[in-house]
Amino acid sequence: MRYCSNCGREVDRKVPAGDTLPRFVCESCGTVHYQNPKMVVGTLPVFENRILLARRAIEPRRGLWTLPAGFMENNETTGEAALRETREEVGAEVELGMLFSLVNIAHISQVHMFYLARMSSEAFAPGVESLEARLFAEEDLPWNEMAFRSSTLTLRHFLDDRRARQFRVHLEDLAAGSRH
Amino acid sequence: MRYCSNCGREVDRKVPAGDTLPRFVCESCGTVHYQNPKMVVGTLPVFENRILLARRAIEPRRGLWTLPAGFMENNETTGEAALRETREEVGAEVELGMLFSLVNIAHISQVHMFYLARMSSEAFAPGVESLEARLFAEEDLPWNEMAFRSSTLTLRHFLDDRRARQFRVHLEDLAAGSRH
Repeated sequence: MRYCSNCGREVDRKVPAGDTLPRFVCESCGTVHYQNPKMVVGTLPVFENRILLARRAIEPRRGLWTLPAGFMENNETTGEAALRETREEVGAEVELGMLFSLVNIAHISQVHMFYLARMSSEAFAPGVESLEARLFAEEDLPWNEMAFRSSTLTLRHFLDDRRARQFRVHLEDLAAGSRH
Repeated sequence: MRYCSNCGREVDRKVPAGDTLPRFVCESCGTVHYQNPKMVVGTLPVFENRILLARRAIEPRRGLWTLPAGFMENNETTGEAALRETREEVGAEVELGMLFSLVNIAHISQVHMFYLARMSSEAFAPGVESLEARLFAEEDLPWNEMAFRSSTLTLRHFLDDRRARQFRVHLEDLAAGSRH
């Protein structure tokens, strides 16, 4: 950020009075421009015993596989974001289950969340941001071609919990330098 | 947003090519300015059987009671945000338990999250944004003087779950027009 989005003048970087962190501050109109983490929300869509993944058509990690997920929009709920992203990326209608994983990726200021989801039918189709969508049985999952660690972690927890026949919410913090 | 924070020229409001929602777009430098929901993270701090609340010294809802919570910052995890806000608002050191509630407030583009937390000692002190901090027994909780519905809902779920001796994660969507 270089210019004030409210008045167009150059901003300074400083700790506002009464605050503890440096912010972009406009000395001209007085606006303090806070910047906050973003949420990426998606699903783990299941049809019978198989899991639906998308192969990314866009950067980063074009060509690699991921659970359907994307940036949450203003004026929607986490559940609405999960349904929308699933519709957009893999063309699937799902019934949301529990919030299953929450993954902090602090060094890029993101929080990723995945819901368990049951596909209403076997119908799906890749969206414009996906090269391909495919239902994978456990033994066929493309572990070495996954785009993001939050998807990989969520898949592993799902398979473990399914074996144990008990699903719980999983919180994880990913450190910088780890592959994600 | 009226001016581009990257180049200082006026922005337009339009749907970018390949997108589905209107964004603030700078025709001059090409930047698309996405706006996304914000996370408010806090705790439900417990010492023995009592719950620690803060009375707000700032607007909105000055003078009313709340669980300690605030906007998550860039480069921190949800857990770090919860600990920081608890330290800042009620001066308490806590040990985090489970993520207990997630409350969507779509009409103001916020997601509120609360962790259960055990206070390490009875020590606490109101921070600069609090008029007062106080440990409340269940029968003394100030239900009619609560600042935000996300705190009220989280408290109710906690008391219900404590009676049932089983704590689970609670997801809620608050609608516009409801008091929060």
